Amino acid sequence: MKAKVYRTIHRTLLLGACTLFAAGAGAAEKELPPKPSVTDIVKASKPSDWRALDPDNTLYMEMPWGRVVIELAPTFAPNHVKNIKALVRNHYFDGLAVVRVQDNWVVQWGDPNDETDKARPVKGAQKTLKAEFTVPLANDKHFTRMPDVDGYAPQSGHSNGFPVGRDPKTGETWLAHCYGMVGVGRDSDADSGGGTSLYATIGPARHLDRNITVVGRVVSGMPQLAALPRGPAPMGFYDKPEMNVPITSVRVAADLPPEQRSRFDVMRTDSAAFQAVLDAQRNRGGPWTKVAMHHVDLCAAPVPVREQKP
Amino acid sequence: MKAKVYRTIHRTLLLGACTLFAAGAGAAEKELPPKPSVTDIVKASKPSDWRALDPDNTLYMEMPWGRVVIELAPTFAPNHVKNIKALVRNHYFDGLAVVRVQDNWVVQWGDPNDETDKARPVKGAQKTLKAEFTVPLANDKHFTRMPDVDGYAPQSGHSNGFPVGRDPKTGETWLAHCYGMVGVGRDSDADSGGGTSLYATIGPARHLDRNITVVGRVVSGMPQLAALPRGPAPMGFYDKPEMNVPITSVRVAADLPPEQRSRFDVMRTDSAAFQAVLDAQRNRGGPWTKVAMHHVDLCAAPVPVREQKP
Repeated sequence: MKAKVYRTIHRTLLLGACTLFAAGAGAAEKELPPKPSVTDIVKASKPSDWRALDPDNTLYMEMPWGRVVIELAPTFAPNHVKNIKALVRNHYFDGLAVVRVQDNWVVQWGDPNDETDKARPVKGAQKTLKAEFTVPLANDKHFTRMPDVDGYAPQSGHSNGFPVGRDPKTGETWLAHCYGMVGVGRDSDADSGGGTSLYATIGPARHLDRNITVVGRVVSGMPQLAALPRGPAPMGFYDKPEMNVPITSVRVAADLPPEQRSRFDVMRTDSAAFQAVLDAQRNRGGPWTKVAMHHVDLCAAPVPVREQKP
Repeated sequence: MKAKVYRTIHRTLLLGACTLFAAGAGAAEKELPPKPSVTDIVKASKPSDWRALDPDNTLYMEMPWGRVVIELAPTFAPNHVKNIKALVRNHYFDGLAVVRVQDNWVVQWGDPNDETDKARPVKGAQKTLKAEFTVPLANDKHFTRMPDVDGYAPQSGHSNGFPVGRDPKTGETWLAHCYGMVGVGRDSDADSGGGTSLYATIGPARHLDRNITVVGRVVSGMPQLAALPRGPAPMGFYDKPEMNVPITSVRVAADLPPEQRSRFDVMRTDSAAFQAVLDAQRNRGGPWTKVAMHHVDLCAAPVPVREQKP
């Protein structure tokens, strides 16, 4: 079966393996010319197309199955990033848990005893902060615009590895809720979050843009987080303490000795390589693809990440 | 914690519970007026806003944890639906397995021994069929258009409970690859699928529209399918037979006695209730939401489903 299905509904067709099929398409179908896939572009990329994660803005969330790596985005949420790092350095998250998984929506973690008299103290950090839903356009020097239409933002594209929206009229920019983006849970009050309760998106969530403070994204570990059991209680909460998925610890990468750090590179989103990645998804080549879309949604074009081999 | 997070990043805020917060938003934020949520609209809906699934076009895929319910869409893939029902009535799928879960992409099932000499015979059904990527516009009498911009289709909206795209210029309509849609795996040849290998989407996949035959959607069971372990082999395949997730059986609902059938209703997508559902997601009300989007993506507006209580 694999020989067949390996070429089925793939994202990153390796063209070399399939050139024999160039004449095999259905008679009624036009044959699209082959073109490089995302995999091809990553293979052909230069070291300068990539940047290493900044250890001072990288979190390691250690889970029972291994490490989740989160890249923080201080450009977009400077005060929340500072506060989350203060919480991490207080070991606030150690021993807390994933408490909610709602299908096609979010994985959320924090203190299961929050708002009880057993709530964990935040020590030198803040429990709540003024919202950072957007920042001034001028704060962001790395924006590369996508030409593709986007119903959720007047302009959209990428900034330094993150998907972002922009509104030149209001002078605002913000991180967009694509898969694996990490945001700050809050109450109805805009300023009621601070980073003690965080979530990663596992479904369409762009309507949260500009409504919640987004602090970064998961660059490694989504397949494990997204496969956690959905919670049976309303909104996907786990309804028994034993369902909670324990967080062993969270650390700032810079606080670990180099030999204990993970080494991930993110493709530079202002590189020609990344523009080629976008185009490889906007207009796929044959032989598998029969109709090119001439479009790619902001959230349908994940920014490539790769682990550096030691 | 629940009291707090229950109101956090929710989809379907129950307004009654939150009226006390009307004055609580951050000083810098405008307060949006409250409006009915999807939950409110479903509660207030009339019986005529719903239709029951047609037992002759409903499949039950029995899994170790329970039943997955799939609604077939003969309007959009008449020959494939007929063939899949023939396969099911031959008990083709009984004892086969989920063989692939690729994160943020697809869950795929079929014959682990396909393309070996142990491949299961299709008996009176077909192994491959001519592609049904699109059908003529005239075939579909139920389309309700959404006004929201869509980069993947000149027109988009819903038809009889399914998300669809349309192109008046080419005279075609097709099912759109939103969450939980079920499609037919194929090789590079357009006509190389037939329904022996099926998948459900668990991530952004609209670029598959018009490139693959879509036969229906999962109306119950996605939370379990989407939480299956991701496969470690390339493209998310399980690399050991013991990882395969067994399918106990697949049956056409009409072939079971009424007392063994599940009873699900789908909201009629040409009803005023569904238009209100779309608007509840397009322009959310306060107090939690601070900025309404004035937009909802086709795939960010799932069609409500409810189980009839016996």
